[in-house]
Amino acid sequence: MKRRVEQCIEAIRKLDLDSLLISNPMNITYLTGFREAEGYLLLTAGADMFYFTNFLYQEEAKRVNAWKVIVGNDNVFSLIGDSIQHLHLKAVGFEAKYLPFLEYSKIYEYISGSSCSLIETIDLVESIRAIKTPEELSLIKKSIAISREAFEYILQIHDQASTEKDLSIEVEKFLRLKGDSQIAFSPIVASGKNSAFPHYLPQEVCLDRQFFLIDLGSKYCGYCADLTRVFFWGKMPPLFRTIYDTVKRAHNRSIKIIREGIKAKDVDRCARQIVERAGWGKFFGHGLGHGVGLAVHELPFLNHKSEEVLKEGMIITIEPAIYIPGKFGIRIEDMVLVTSKGGQILSGDVNQ
Amino acid sequence: MKRRVEQCIEAIRKLDLDSLLISNPMNITYLTGFREAEGYLLLTAGADMFYFTNFLYQEEAKRVNAWKVIVGNDNVFSLIGDSIQHLHLKAVGFEAKYLPFLEYSKIYEYISGSSCSLIETIDLVESIRAIKTPEELSLIKKSIAISREAFEYILQIHDQASTEKDLSIEVEKFLRLKGDSQIAFSPIVASGKNSAFPHYLPQEVCLDRQFFLIDLGSKYCGYCADLTRVFFWGKMPPLFRTIYDTVKRAHNRSIKIIREGIKAKDVDRCARQIVERAGWGKFFGHGLGHGVGLAVHELPFLNHKSEEVLKEGMIITIEPAIYIPGKFGIRIEDMVLVTSKGGQILSGDVNQ
Repeated sequence: MKRRVEQCIEAIRKLDLDSLLISNPMNITYLTGFREAEGYLLLTAGADMFYFTNFLYQEEAKRVNAWKVIVGNDNVFSLIGDSIQHLHLKAVGFEAKYLPFLEYSKIYEYISGSSCSLIETIDLVESIRAIKTPEELSLIKKSIAISREAFEYILQIHDQASTEKDLSIEVEKFLRLKGDSQIAFSPIVASGKNSAFPHYLPQEVCLDRQFFLIDLGSKYCGYCADLTRVFFWGKMPPLFRTIYDTVKRAHNRSIKIIREGIKAKDVDRCARQIVERAGWGKFFGHGLGHGVGLAVHELPFLNHKSEEVLKEGMIITIEPAIYIPGKFGIRIEDMVLVTSKGGQILSGDVNQ
Repeated sequence: MKRRVEQCIEAIRKLDLDSLLISNPMNITYLTGFREAEGYLLLTAGADMFYFTNFLYQEEAKRVNAWKVIVGNDNVFSLIGDSIQHLHLKAVGFEAKYLPFLEYSKIYEYISGSSCSLIETIDLVESIRAIKTPEELSLIKKSIAISREAFEYILQIHDQASTEKDLSIEVEKFLRLKGDSQIAFSPIVASGKNSAFPHYLPQEVCLDRQFFLIDLGSKYCGYCADLTRVFFWGKMPPLFRTIYDTVKRAHNRSIKIIREGIKAKDVDRCARQIVERAGWGKFFGHGLGHGVGLAVHELPFLNHKSEEVLKEGMIITIEPAIYIPGKFGIRIEDMVLVTSKGGQILSGDVNQ
């Protein structure tokens, strides 16, 4: 944690700020280990940390040695404003992607008239989070192992589940028992035609016994996995086979070109061109992948306009897909570690 | 849904706005029935509805007849800005509690130079949501029934669960099977000393066989329940009995004074005075309760500074509590319908 705080302070100084007000709960977890809660972390360039929270979390927050806890049940923003003034801070960064307009306004109100400015920052902590340490890598590997076991479990039990919802509940229970109580996201169990919806919610509809798509991820010590597999039984119709092969080719080829230094958009383009040349470009409407860590979707984002450059230690998903409305969708999603030598698939290479 | 949209338009007009940009996904669900997703709803005073979303949700969104779907994968904010200009809107309200500062800035950028203003609104749709229709009431009653069944289920199975986490996983599965796939919130299973943390996360620690506190809620057709029960076996120590009786008295008395027209803070004060007079005031640090509907915490909020007045059709929790750090906590939470004749307990009155 100490190293993370140091990196954050470096980034704060580089932007000529004297402090950062952190409101994204995952960034707070990343820097302190404290669980996601309602609160605000003020980190100064001098390495002081103040945590503003309410009665509900005060006892737990006080167990963290690294910060001073300030409890404000009525108006936490006036307390933040008071601290900013008391510490004589002049340039306080805030997380513009997360801080709601109203909260910004309230803090601004308390410091207006002083010589302090609130300054927009974007992805300051998130950029640090994008590069995983060896410890984080091993937690993510464990989370991936649990998620892969879940696919094996699905193969054992899917016959007994009558609906998408039933199967998703069983899978979710499995993920929770093996990993953290919390999971990375609610499993997507999309059977038959429903697979054509990328972010489908499982329904109380009968499981299609020929085909379903499952996207799932456990958490382990807070770290997410995110994998998608398609399951098919019986004789595969030609269109299905064509689409599957195209997605698989896009998946394999784009993973092959991953290495430190490549632009995220070039990896996206590699997969997208394969899908486009096969004639299915307009049915692959989302980005190729995203970083995974404490959050299931985090930096870097791989899409056609991303300016990010892949760096050693990033862990990303590669998930090309083709969704044919009213028919079916195929997505194959694996997790890949970026190294100087290339991309290393962390999630095996299972094709059911 | 039509009546809800009409109420919303009335509220928009009352504020001299010509439209409202809605970014809280639950407000969008409330007005359209569309599930929670990434998107923005622009509702004009002329009853036109535009939904801005991305590829992931486009096919599902197009099934909603009430709105025109505008898909923008790259920059949804420029599309919102374009629509605002194209429709010649001059006073666009936005939800200041939900819209992140960065998103506000981006939309502002696209319309700056025009004669349009973006105007902060607070709780516009939420105030409508606070009053439940008879249909909503029946869905919430069903959700409460499922949640009460879960407590019965806990009585049957707790002996087989070895840890807090195990029990919470079983309870969660029960709630999902009986209600929606999604639940209102992850169950709090806090055993022994851990009950002293109000928003506790269940851990892999052995269940205390004498005492645990469970706070849980299912969803049913999107509507939440939120109930807390304490379970005690064996001879109750005197301190525990005193605390329990105090909380129970605060619970019962405050429910008795609920009726249409009473101020939320007066109901809070009723419970708080009982706890304070018994000498435990500083251990009851949160509000007495909150509204429940599509969100598990919504308007009205019952606390010492709330200026809200209870109205017929509101459904609220009453959850006085005393938390003694390092020892234990007792919270008793029921759900109550506000009527002109008084408060009607919807969740029975179980004391395990």
